Amino acid sequence: MTKNDGCKIVIVGGVAGGASAATRARRMNEHADIILLEKDSDVSFANCGLPYHIGGEIEDRSELVVASAEFLAKRFRIDVRTRHEAVSIDRQKKRVEVLRRDSGERIWIDYDKLILAPGASPIHPPITGADASNVLTLRNLDDMDRIKAIVDAQATRKAVVVGAGYIGLEMVEQLIHRSIETSLVELQPQVLPLLDAEMAAPIASEALSKGVSLFLGRGITEIITDDDNRATAVILGDGTQIETDLVVLGIGVRPNVSLAVDAGLELGATGGILTNDYMQTADPDIYAVGDAAEYVYGPTGKRMRIALAGPANRAGRLAGQHAATGKSDPMPAVQGTSVVRVFGCSAASTGMTRSFAKRFDINAKSVTVIAKSHAGYYPGAETMTLKLVYDPQTEKILGAQAVGGEGVDKRIDVIATAMQFGGTVRQLTGVDLCYAPPFGSAKDPVHMAAFAACNQMDGVGDFSEFDADLSSKQVVDVRTCDEISKAPLAGVENPISIPVDELRIRISELDLAKETVVACGVGVRGHVACCILRQNGFQVENLTGGATLRNLAAIHSTP
Amino acid sequence: MTKNDGCKIVIVGGVAGGASAATRARRMNEHADIILLEKDSDVSFANCGLPYHIGGEIEDRSELVVASAEFLAKRFRIDVRTRHEAVSIDRQKKRVEVLRRDSGERIWIDYDKLILAPGASPIHPPITGADASNVLTLRNLDDMDRIKAIVDAQATRKAVVVGAGYIGLEMVEQLIHRSIETSLVELQPQVLPLLDAEMAAPIASEALSKGVSLFLGRGITEIITDDDNRATAVILGDGTQIETDLVVLGIGVRPNVSLAVDAGLELGATGGILTNDYMQTADPDIYAVGDAAEYVYGPTGKRMRIALAGPANRAGRLAGQHAATGKSDPMPAVQGTSVVRVFGCSAASTGMTRSFAKRFDINAKSVTVIAKSHAGYYPGAETMTLKLVYDPQTEKILGAQAVGGEGVDKRIDVIATAMQFGGTVRQLTGVDLCYAPPFGSAKDPVHMAAFAACNQMDGVGDFSEFDADLSSKQVVDVRTCDEISKAPLAGVENPISIPVDELRIRISELDLAKETVVACGVGVRGHVACCILRQNGFQVENLTGGATLRNLAAIHSTP
Ligand SMILES: Cc1cc2nc3c(=O)[nH]c(=O)nc-3n(C[C@H](O)[C@H](O)[C@H](O)COP(=O)(O)OP(=O)(O)OC[C@H]3O[C@@H](n4cnc5c(N)ncnc54)[C@H](O)[C@@H]3O)c2cc1C
Ligand SMILES: Cc1cc2nc3c(=O)[nH]c(=O)nc-3n(C[C@H](O)[C@H](O)[C@H](O)COP(=O)(O)OP(=O)(O)OC[C@H]3O[C@@H](n4cnc5c(N)ncnc54)[C@H](O)[C@@H]3O)c2cc1C
Ligand SMILES: CC(C)(COP(=O)(O)OP(=O)(O)OC[C@H]1O[C@@H](n2cnc3c(N)ncnc32)[C@H](O)[C@@H]1OP(=O)(O)O)[C@@H](O)C(=O)NCCC(=O)NCCS
Ligand SMILES: CC(C)(COP(=O)(O)OP(=O)(O)OC[C@H]1O[C@@H](n2cnc3c(N)ncnc32)[C@H](O)[C@@H]1OP(=O)(O)O)[C@@H](O)C(=O)NCCC(=O)NCCS
Repeated sequence: MTKNDGCKIVIVGGVAGGASAATRARRMNEHADIILLEKDSDVSFANCGLPYHIGGEIEDRSELVVASAEFLAKRFRIDVRTRHEAVSIDRQKKRVEVLRRDSGERIWIDYDKLILAPGASPIHPPITGADASNVLTLRNLDDMDRIKAIVDAQATRKAVVVGAGYIGLEMVEQLIHRSIETSLVELQPQVLPLLDAEMAAPIASEALSKGVSLFLGRGITEIITDDDNRATAVILGDGTQIETDLVVLGIGVRPNVSLAVDAGLELGATGGILTNDYMQTADPDIYAVGDAAEYVYGPTGKRMRIALAGPANRAGRLAGQHAATGKSDPMPAVQGTSVVRVFGCSAASTGMTRSFAKRFDINAKSVTVIAKSHAGYYPGAETMTLKLVYDPQTEKILGAQAVGGEGVDKRIDVIATAMQFGGTVRQLTGVDLCYAPPFGSAKDPVHMAAFAACNQMDGVGDFSEFDADLSSKQVVDVRTCDEISKAPLAGVENPISIPVDELRIRISELDLAKETVVACGVGVRGHVACCILRQNGFQVENLTGGATLRNLAAIHSTP
Repeated sequence: MTKNDGCKIVIVGGVAGGASAATRARRMNEHADIILLEKDSDVSFANCGLPYHIGGEIEDRSELVVASAEFLAKRFRIDVRTRHEAVSIDRQKKRVEVLRRDSGERIWIDYDKLILAPGASPIHPPITGADASNVLTLRNLDDMDRIKAIVDAQATRKAVVVGAGYIGLEMVEQLIHRSIETSLVELQPQVLPLLDAEMAAPIASEALSKGVSLFLGRGITEIITDDDNRATAVILGDGTQIETDLVVLGIGVRPNVSLAVDAGLELGATGGILTNDYMQTADPDIYAVGDAAEYVYGPTGKRMRIALAGPANRAGRLAGQHAATGKSDPMPAVQGTSVVRVFGCSAASTGMTRSFAKRFDINAKSVTVIAKSHAGYYPGAETMTLKLVYDPQTEKILGAQAVGGEGVDKRIDVIATAMQFGGTVRQLTGVDLCYAPPFGSAKDPVHMAAFAACNQMDGVGDFSEFDADLSSKQVVDVRTCDEISKAPLAGVENPISIPVDELRIRISELDLAKETVVACGVGVRGHVACCILRQNGFQVENLTGGATLRNLAAIHSTP
């Protein structure tokens, strides 16, 4: 390890990326000067925990301060300066201009190494009324306090959350916990717009079932305010008006890159600060990490912004070490793995979705299985829907999404790990996962998805899309009559009903000349039926996810 | 796909491996004859669920029949013959001799392809009294019914479980659920003898806390019976006598290889039937899978027996396809990933332990971290201990063990997946896992373990073993005085007490010339302290897992 006396490391931004850089820098270099600049009042707080304090699940506010300024000073000898905003960088003289927000004073601080971890800022839309006092965004403890104060107030009955991404949905959940009548507005026709629509549908169902009013496919166009500049209602693109006592905006973030741009540092294709594998910008003495930076995205190999806490923490740690010692391992690719819990339903995802692949013209296929979180015969098993996206040429896993109860996080973590190693769906069939009845199944949902993908590639298990137009096809519903009458196949006129166990003897009822699609409950019996039909000369496909997925995928918004 | 009319596939053993082979063979070959021979009364039942029906968690016995003989016949056109025991193989004539157990008759059945999936049989020790009517093993539904009948009987108050492996522990848990006074006897000085001792210790603690009487390091030498040939007590090697109404033996299994051996098929080094990557034995028309076979073991690359349901199911599926079509993907290496829940504590493991490495002289190092199952600031986080074993030369992950509450299965699955790809601990630092407060941490326990391993390799985080003899070392306890007084460091006389936050100013109290070991609660503060001391010239190690691991590792048995 390089003993690096006299090394002066200045860090801009004191939370996920910045604080992680500071502590690792200290551990790696006991003798460096480390200055942590934070423009707001708090450092090292749990951004991700903010909604849960508003909702009361995390009762004690101080729990959210992971490492206070005092703690960082005491344990790590870090010179933490809150309410100090970096306003410009003089790369020639290697110094940062800092605004002391309390006094208004400006000072220059020299650096040997500068780490930029300024994060991102919530987007505030430029519409009438958006500056009302109860129209708020959530990024830090101050924001949280403001929202919580309104929620705590006796008079607050109703809230509108705008944006059905992760933060929006977490807020919705927590507002409902607080018995606030909550509406969720989303411009896209689905919640979780970064997921494939049918994978997001169960989350919408869950929210609806918990009393959330859902307005999909419509944005807000105006906020109506009263004389005290308080929002009283929002108006949507289709004219809908929703009364409210609080508006929480969760429509996305913009990376804080102005400091870098003004200093002449390059941005990447997605607008984050461009770095190399050691998180160094075009200027090797300046690093950038976190929401303001870009990472190599595993599925494409290209750099892009990935605004998540895990990468920010790991990249911060790495930059901290590199700044402090001049060396580190390179930053590995990031898969963009994420998860959100919405009441009893969770959605997790890694890598790219099918929609992403379509949008960027990437050759991709997918399979979807519906399976139990653990052995079906052991009590408490919950259903999950798992979708695997892969490249049919290289067989590489491109991404996966899971939605359901218990264990969706585990399956996505397993697949994300396989992706970290450039894994193929064929290799995924062989992952050796732990199994006992309370934890999984001997053939795990991950295996089932990988099997299905291999069957698809090997021509022994072709699928038709869950939402395919089946009007010109011979559709065979192989469920029992009872199942069919309870949940007829959406959008299919007069499917032929032959329970799978009668298929062999009743096969002559089918027309060999017609393109055939088989449907069952989730796809398992459909697979068996397809195997029978294919080997009897039929050209046949299995409806992905069966009637369950097809019927569930059409979720409507309230009013 | 090969259309393989007239192909006749005979399968010996109708449960995990055998039934999986049969169903996949059918899907891949609609026209083959498929005969499934099962010597006992049931096929395709959930072996792994048996303890839970005895304990009443799975109320309905029929839940345990995953696919009945009738079901397999109806859906898969499989000719299931229960109470048909294969007794010999005539490889020349390609036929199997079968004993019809109900009639005593013997018949010959021809095969084109033969799949052996006869499983393993529980070991019954050759000691006095072992044949008593209430001394039982657990492998199938009949065994379960026998044990359950005894447990259900009014008079049954006490039970002795012999063997503290997975099945033994599951039985103990379920017997306690049934309010049976339960003793657990294990010859080895620890429960879960296949884990490293300190990783098994929390499971022993948990069992003790639930009222189980634990007798470790002692085997049973005799079973005392009454006039009705009923066991009334067991006697242990040290003379201890334990009264009982029921003895359940869970001391291991022996692979059922006699059929194969008699037919001249080769066994592997660990006594299982030797196969190639397509699960073919020395005779390419005969396959072997499951507990009776061997697999390539990931961490060593050598073939060995791995008696688990996951590999049996996957290998059965593969052999079924290969037998039915003449081709399949090769069987991937198996990591031996497993998990067991014992009341509120679970232990999971993949690959090799440190003890395995020592026994087989494999160059291995390990690190142990103690971390939360999800973000500490979000309610309900549970502690887990995670040990990572790796090869310091190649940096390859060799294995991992986790013990604790929620989420041990997830972490082991992630590491098992990394191992499937030959992953290194350095690569493991970069796995991109999903994070939201209810699910994990931005730096997951898996990352922490990987970081610690890399620090150890890079010389910035040396560890001393949790049970190291520290008598000749300068031991610095960096916890607070309060913590130290509550849980003094086991086996250390007069450690020097300097809280980590005072270390920089009190460093002169330490002797630079002495080899130093730092201890804290779990290792995190110890790591910080070591970084400070090392960079001040000390030769210093961090006590793995801190006082928590050291103090917990010494678990004693009752009486
Ligand atoms: C409510 C909420 C919930 C979230 N939930 C999750 C989740 O469950 N999982 C997940 O992975 N991610 C989650 N995130 C995202 C995650 O918090 C971010 O990806 C992560 O914090 C980014 O780290 P960062 O260091 O880049 O930015 P931040 O952690 O935001 O830190 C940047 C800091 O820099 C300061 N700063 C900016 N400019 C300057 C300047 N010029 N001078 C000085 N200081 C400056 C800012 O004030 C800020 O405190 C959530 C975010 C929010 C807001
Ligand atoms: C109580 C219990 C709990 C378990 N829990 C777990 C767990 O949680 N996780 C896990 O991974 N594993 C667990 N296992 C192990 C798992 O069940 C086995 O690894 C798996 O069943 C092995 O599959 P197999 O096909 O090789 O053997 P089996 O599933 O045992 O099937 C073999 C069948 O072959 C029959 N047979 C044998 N010889 C002949 C013959 N000559 N002719 C005809 N039939 C024959 C036998 O009667 C038997 O039914 C558990 C096992 C038990 C008993
Ligand atoms: C049940 C048993 C007979 C296997 O039956 P199976 O039909 O092969 O297995 P499943 O019902 O799980 O179905 C799996 C098949 O459905 C396919 N599948 C699963 N979900 C699907 C979906 N949504 N769409 C399409 N196909 C799907 C899988 O790809 C697989 O087919 P393949 O092998 O042709 O690729 C066998 O596992 C068994 O006997 N189990 C009990 C014994 C045991 O395992 N004991 C130890 C553990 S307790
Ligand atoms: C808390 C924070 C300042 C980081 O502090 P930190 O000291 O680097 O991190 P931790 O306390 O988790 O400790 C991790 C260190 O302990 C080590 N460690 C962990 N367990 C260990 C053990 N049992 N033995 C030895 N070392 C161990 C790790 O290797 C790591 O050290 P390294 O980086 O030198 O390798 C930073 O993560 C932060 O500000 N977090 C809050 C903000 C945030 O992340 N927001 C988004 C999510 S809500």
